[in-house]
Amino acid sequence: MQRTRLDLDRIRAARKVIDPVFLDSPLYRCEALEPLLGCAVNIKLETANPVRSFKGRGTEVVASQLAGSDSRAVVCASAGNLGQALAWSSRDRGLDVTVVASRFATATKLDRIRALGAKLELVDGDHELARERAAAIAQYDGIRLLEDSLDLETCEGAATIGLELVPRIDPSSRPAVLIALGGGALATGVGYVLKTLAPAVEVICVQPLGAPALTHSWHQRRVVTTDATNTIADGVAGRIPIPEVLDDLLLVADDAVLVQEASIITGLRMLLDHAGLVVEPSAALGIAAVLEDRDRFAGRQVFTIVCGSNVDLDKYRGWVSL
Amino acid sequence: MQRTRLDLDRIRAARKVIDPVFLDSPLYRCEALEPLLGCAVNIKLETANPVRSFKGRGTEVVASQLAGSDSRAVVCASAGNLGQALAWSSRDRGLDVTVVASRFATATKLDRIRALGAKLELVDGDHELARERAAAIAQYDGIRLLEDSLDLETCEGAATIGLELVPRIDPSSRPAVLIALGGGALATGVGYVLKTLAPAVEVICVQPLGAPALTHSWHQRRVVTTDATNTIADGVAGRIPIPEVLDDLLLVADDAVLVQEASIITGLRMLLDHAGLVVEPSAALGIAAVLEDRDRFAGRQVFTIVCGSNVDLDKYRGWVSL
Repeated sequence: MQRTRLDLDRIRAARKVIDPVFLDSPLYRCEALEPLLGCAVNIKLETANPVRSFKGRGTEVVASQLAGSDSRAVVCASAGNLGQALAWSSRDRGLDVTVVASRFATATKLDRIRALGAKLELVDGDHELARERAAAIAQYDGIRLLEDSLDLETCEGAATIGLELVPRIDPSSRPAVLIALGGGALATGVGYVLKTLAPAVEVICVQPLGAPALTHSWHQRRVVTTDATNTIADGVAGRIPIPEVLDDLLLVADDAVLVQEASIITGLRMLLDHAGLVVEPSAALGIAAVLEDRDRFAGRQVFTIVCGSNVDLDKYRGWVSL
Repeated sequence: MQRTRLDLDRIRAARKVIDPVFLDSPLYRCEALEPLLGCAVNIKLETANPVRSFKGRGTEVVASQLAGSDSRAVVCASAGNLGQALAWSSRDRGLDVTVVASRFATATKLDRIRALGAKLELVDGDHELARERAAAIAQYDGIRLLEDSLDLETCEGAATIGLELVPRIDPSSRPAVLIALGGGALATGVGYVLKTLAPAVEVICVQPLGAPALTHSWHQRRVVTTDATNTIADGVAGRIPIPEVLDDLLLVADDAVLVQEASIITGLRMLLDHAGLVVEPSAALGIAAVLEDRDRFAGRQVFTIVCGSNVDLDKYRGWVSL
C-alpha cells in the first residue's frame, strides 16, 4: 500500500489517551438478522458510551493534546456527534468549546451539546456553511479549529476501532467491513488499519445516494462536489470532500457504494426488530448496502460499524412505524 | 459477612471460561437521564451480546463443565433468556439442550431458543410449572437439570458482572447498585462480590409488586410463596423462592423493594427516550425504583444493570407508545 497520512504507531498511541469508556466496544454476531440478509452479520456497537457515537475516540485525542498545550479553546463544525463528543472530552479538562452547526441539525444532538456546556452557534444553512463559519471563528479568535476527517486525530481515534476488529476477523471467511462514509475519518481510519493488518478484508464505504460527493470523488479519483444533499442520514451529509481525505480513501477503500433512502429505513427497522437497537440513519448504512446487493455478500462474514444512536425519536418513530 | 454459598476464587475461575463476547460489557454514565432522576445514573449494559441478556455468563460456565464431562444432555426451565443462553453456549460444544417454558412466555424468546437448535417444550401454565416439568424430564431421562439461581454456576456467571463493577465504583459517592430480582442468581452473585470487595455499596434488589415472592421472603426472613404473578416483567415472574438462594440473599442484599407496573413502563420509556435503549421490562426495574423513591437516591451514584432486551416489539410498542 502506498503511504497515507496515517500511521500505526500514532494510532496505537492514540488508543492510550482515549478514556476506556469509548474503547473495546461490543463486537458480536447477530444471528437474528442473518436469515434476512444471507450472510453472517457482526455488529461493532459504538453507541453504548456517554455520547452515543464513535466520535469520542477522536475527541479524546484532540482534547488530551489541547489540555497539555497553551491553547485552551477549540471550535468545530459538526452535524452533532462530533460537537457532542468534543464537549464531553473538553468538559473535565477545562477547555473552552464552540460548536457550529446547521439550524436544521438533529435537535437531540444540539440539546446534548448545550447540556454538556459547549457554546453552540447555529448557521442558517447546511453543514458546509457551518464548516466555513467555524473556520472564520478560529481565524478571528485565534483558536484551534478542529476539522473532522482532515485533522489526523479524528482519523486516528476512529482507527482504534480497526485495532479492535482485526483480531476478531477470520481472513478465510471472505470478510467485508462496511463503513459509513461521511467526511471520511471513520473510513480512512478503520480502512487504513484493516488494509495494513488484515489485507484480506474487503473495505467497503457506504454513503447515501442523497449525499454522494465523496463516493463520486472516490470513483472519479478527483474531488467532486454536489450542490445539495437529500438524506435522512444527517451524520454523513456533506457536499465538499477534503482532498487529503480523498487521497487516503483511494488507498484504503476497496469500494464505495451508494444506497437508497428506502434501504436505510429498512435497515433501521431491521436493526430495531431483530437486534433491538435504536440507531441513527448513518448507522444503518451497512445493512442497507447488504440489502441492495445480497449476492455480493452471500455466505460471507460481514462486519458493520453501528456508529451512532443520536436520533430525534419523533422522526425515528415515523421511519420505523413505531 | 457470614458465609454464603458463593466464593470469590470460583467466580474468578468462572470468568476464565466465559466467552469474552459476554464479558466487559459497557458501563457508562447516562447524563441525559439525570435531570429526570436526580442522581448520577450509570448503566451496565448486558444486552450487546449474541443472546441479548446477561444469562450467557452463567450458561458458559455450565456448558464448559458439561463439555468436559460424560453428561452431554441438559434440561432447564426458563422464562426465555436462560434457555436462549444455554442453547447458544451448548451449540458449538455439541450438547443436547431441552428448554421447558410456559406457553405464555415472550414469543421472541421462544423463537430464538428454537433457532439456536434447542428442543423446546411448552407447558400450559406458568414458570413454576415449567420448573416442575424440567425436573421431571431430568429425573426420567437421567440428565443434568440446570436450575437457575439454585445451581451455583448461574450465580457465579452473574457475579462476574460484580467483578467488572467494583473497580468503577467510588466508595465515597454513596453508591447504590440496583439489581433486578427474579430467581436471585443476579442479585446474590453481584451482591456477594460487591459486599465482599466494595462493602460501602448499597445493594438494592428490585422486584415488581406483581411478582413479590422473593422480596416478601427477604423481609420476613423465611420463604413466602404467592399464588399468582401479574407483571409485564416476564423475566422475574416467579412465585416459589428457593430456600438456599434466600439464605444468600439475606446476607448480601441491603434492601429489597417492590415497584409498580406504571413505574416499570415509565422506566422503559425513559430508557428509550433518553438513553436510546430498547430493553425488556426486567431491565427497567432499577430506573423504576429510583422513580418511586427519588429522595433516597438524590445526589448519589446509582448503577443499574440493564439485564436484557428480548422483548416482543408489538407489546413494547404498546408500553412506550412507539
